[in-house]
Amino acid sequence: MRILLAGLLAATALPVTAQPTQDPDARIAALRTDALSDDMAWRITEDLTTEVGQRLAGTEAEARARAWAVRRLTAMGFAKVRIEDFPMPVWQRGRESAELVGPYPQKLVVAALGNSAATPASGITAEVVNFPDVEALRAAPTEQVRGKIVYIGHAMPRTEDGSGYGVFGAPRRQGPTVASQKGAIGIVIRSIGTDREHRNPHTGVMNFADGATPIPAGALSNPDADQLERILARGQRPTLRLTLESTVNQGRSGNVIAEVPGRDPNAAPVLVSCHLDSWDLGTGALDDAAGCGIVTAAAKRIMDAGMPARPIRIVWFGAEEVGLFGGLDYRAKYGKQPHHAIMESDFGADRIWKVDSRLGKEREAEARRLQRMLQPLGIVPGSLTETEGSDIGPMVADGLPGAALSQDGTRYFDIHHSPDDTMAVVDKKQMQQNVAAWTTAVAVLAGPVEARPQPTRRRAR
Amino acid sequence: MRILLAGLLAATALPVTAQPTQDPDARIAALRTDALSDDMAWRITEDLTTEVGQRLAGTEAEARARAWAVRRLTAMGFAKVRIEDFPMPVWQRGRESAELVGPYPQKLVVAALGNSAATPASGITAEVVNFPDVEALRAAPTEQVRGKIVYIGHAMPRTEDGSGYGVFGAPRRQGPTVASQKGAIGIVIRSIGTDREHRNPHTGVMNFADGATPIPAGALSNPDADQLERILARGQRPTLRLTLESTVNQGRSGNVIAEVPGRDPNAAPVLVSCHLDSWDLGTGALDDAAGCGIVTAAAKRIMDAGMPARPIRIVWFGAEEVGLFGGLDYRAKYGKQPHHAIMESDFGADRIWKVDSRLGKEREAEARRLQRMLQPLGIVPGSLTETEGSDIGPMVADGLPGAALSQDGTRYFDIHHSPDDTMAVVDKKQMQQNVAAWTTAVAVLAGPVEARPQPTRRRAR
Repeated sequence: MRILLAGLLAATALPVTAQPTQDPDARIAALRTDALSDDMAWRITEDLTTEVGQRLAGTEAEARARAWAVRRLTAMGFAKVRIEDFPMPVWQRGRESAELVGPYPQKLVVAALGNSAATPASGITAEVVNFPDVEALRAAPTEQVRGKIVYIGHAMPRTEDGSGYGVFGAPRRQGPTVASQKGAIGIVIRSIGTDREHRNPHTGVMNFADGATPIPAGALSNPDADQLERILARGQRPTLRLTLESTVNQGRSGNVIAEVPGRDPNAAPVLVSCHLDSWDLGTGALDDAAGCGIVTAAAKRIMDAGMPARPIRIVWFGAEEVGLFGGLDYRAKYGKQPHHAIMESDFGADRIWKVDSRLGKEREAEARRLQRMLQPLGIVPGSLTETEGSDIGPMVADGLPGAALSQDGTRYFDIHHSPDDTMAVVDKKQMQQNVAAWTTAVAVLAGPVEARPQPTRRRAR
Repeated sequence: MRILLAGLLAATALPVTAQPTQDPDARIAALRTDALSDDMAWRITEDLTTEVGQRLAGTEAEARARAWAVRRLTAMGFAKVRIEDFPMPVWQRGRESAELVGPYPQKLVVAALGNSAATPASGITAEVVNFPDVEALRAAPTEQVRGKIVYIGHAMPRTEDGSGYGVFGAPRRQGPTVASQKGAIGIVIRSIGTDREHRNPHTGVMNFADGATPIPAGALSNPDADQLERILARGQRPTLRLTLESTVNQGRSGNVIAEVPGRDPNAAPVLVSCHLDSWDLGTGALDDAAGCGIVTAAAKRIMDAGMPARPIRIVWFGAEEVGLFGGLDYRAKYGKQPHHAIMESDFGADRIWKVDSRLGKEREAEARRLQRMLQPLGIVPGSLTETEGSDIGPMVADGLPGAALSQDGTRYFDIHHSPDDTMAVVDKKQMQQNVAAWTTAVAVLAGPVEARPQPTRRRAR
């Protein structure tokens, strides 16, 4: 019913932006301006995080999210709405706690990292041995680590481009493996998060390297890491009781796919994407319901304005957080087919400050036009030879053409993977700038948006 | 050993501020300036919150805090250091969780309020019925509430003087009683806290009125309250499973008392105070380790500068949070004795912006001098007929003379009674301004600080 109504409205009130007489740049500028008062991205983000909440990959909650997504994308009038599912191992947290039993008995706030081994219900108890970073742990003699619980500090700084996540994410990605290889019975790291005052831990996935025995691995909130470091700085040798229960089962995830038809149905599509799954501690508003809201609102705006030259393919990937399962499934099915451009929004919803692209030398004019059309939004031109994305990362590595709209990540890692990732931290005004940027980019890349061809009336028989 | 050393240093390097030839105002000004680089208050606050951590009233942790306090106050060279203990009922939280089981299944973050009734281990499950404030709940027909779990919103705003805590604290103080009287089986309130983005609930004490059956009562974090309100705003009737385990036992708390001798040992003392206990969710850095740090550093600065006319009595009250037990015990023992002034620091450590006092008409000159000496710290003169304090509140009500240094409370209730109350939120620069203000106030009220009388040398026998 809502589809029919939307179609009717589109037919009766054809937006000015689709008038074929207008200059193409002026049409895109009008779409861009309209998108600055967008409400759709916010509504998708709010509705998904409210009506589903957290949606950990492979769980019943993520399946509810897929069903929700199909209903919403269908109601919005997109074509070919479908789920493409796939099997995956599903790690889920259970009860968890951390407690110093000496010399200063007190509780600390901890969350298990994804794929942490489970402790017994009574926990594990051992002396904490302190390392400033993974390199120091690697350099430590085995006898210093064996039988202990490793702690790694290595506080991550804020940066606009979020690049600190690389080197400062090492304690989470490599720390557990190195600790295990040296005989540690567990590991706690300082959260890979840039907030300093809030007692919320940041989780995230890690994988033990081949041959490393899985051990329990958790993240302390930043204030709890400070507390442990203060105790260590007093020359004490604290003993920690760590309880991290968890389970692993086989389950299914899936990608939700929808399309905006193009005037040339055989043209290579523009892929706009996000991920539907979230970590389990928050409701995944910034990571990544917002991304789904933004790219979907942009595609809807193009569709409402008329018909682009090329199809737009919307993908809400499943199971990104725990290993890009959705991106890899899509790549296996579609990665050899031509794509005009692949793009993903997965870095929150704060203002976009930079555009990168890699469309190829022969499409430099298109890439420069993309840069130029984004400048009125305060977006600086970046690389013409590099692009990026999370789920689409493997296809970017394969060499598919693409573009990337970089959000301001200054506060992104204050919130990332923590219980604080809820609607309360989404900034609507900045999200609207994202929708305007995405609408502009998709309008450029999907080709001129023109009035939808009128359906031929059936003659009376 | 540290005491002897401190005494030696005081004797060999008598501060310039204690030179009897100086003008009294100038001596106080010098003490004030020195205190702006104070490190003692920070050290007391950091050491207490690190080496003890949380110290819920009546628990083993609070007893450890008292032992710690006696060691520290003795080492600092104060006189008559002692514990005065008393019995009290001790409520302690156990496992707690809140989960919407329909229509949108998801977990919410909750903390039991102090004195909440315990649920069974399997929790209680009922429909949530929504009220904007306590008055609306009071006005509701019983049949609307019976058998349900009440929710009360009523979001508290930030104010400099913290006065929102009065009327916006009503859901916590009266909500559970009113809900119980109307037959509710439980209640969850929006946290009485002014942060909006962090998923940390604010606990606090409440007491069921006579005749009201205790029911389970918890506080949701502000983002979780927003989430519940969004669901209610969609016209849904959410069902909540609430688990709040807790225990009540008899225990003991106590006040820790120390003194700075005055030149006239019979003069009425100046009481400077704080509370040693904290809520159990954070480490009670702002509430109220900082208060103990500030008043104790001020007293120590006076003591190191010489000897005041009147004794200074330092009290670190026990069991403030759960019902002013320490203040009432002190009042029962000392409340009929004359006090020159009673004061307490229990509102964090952000800058002091106002001084109130109630010293009596005949001491107006002293009160005005107090105002004048504080002005260089940016402190505005307040009332001459009103003062306040938490533990000392009953004695203020009895009419004892006193003064109050009001901290800027703008962000105090962002943190108050939540897991975020740790060293990470203490601002050292502002804390130093507090120490300077307290040193000034105590120097004015305890009378001129003069060189300590030299001990008479014993003659050789």
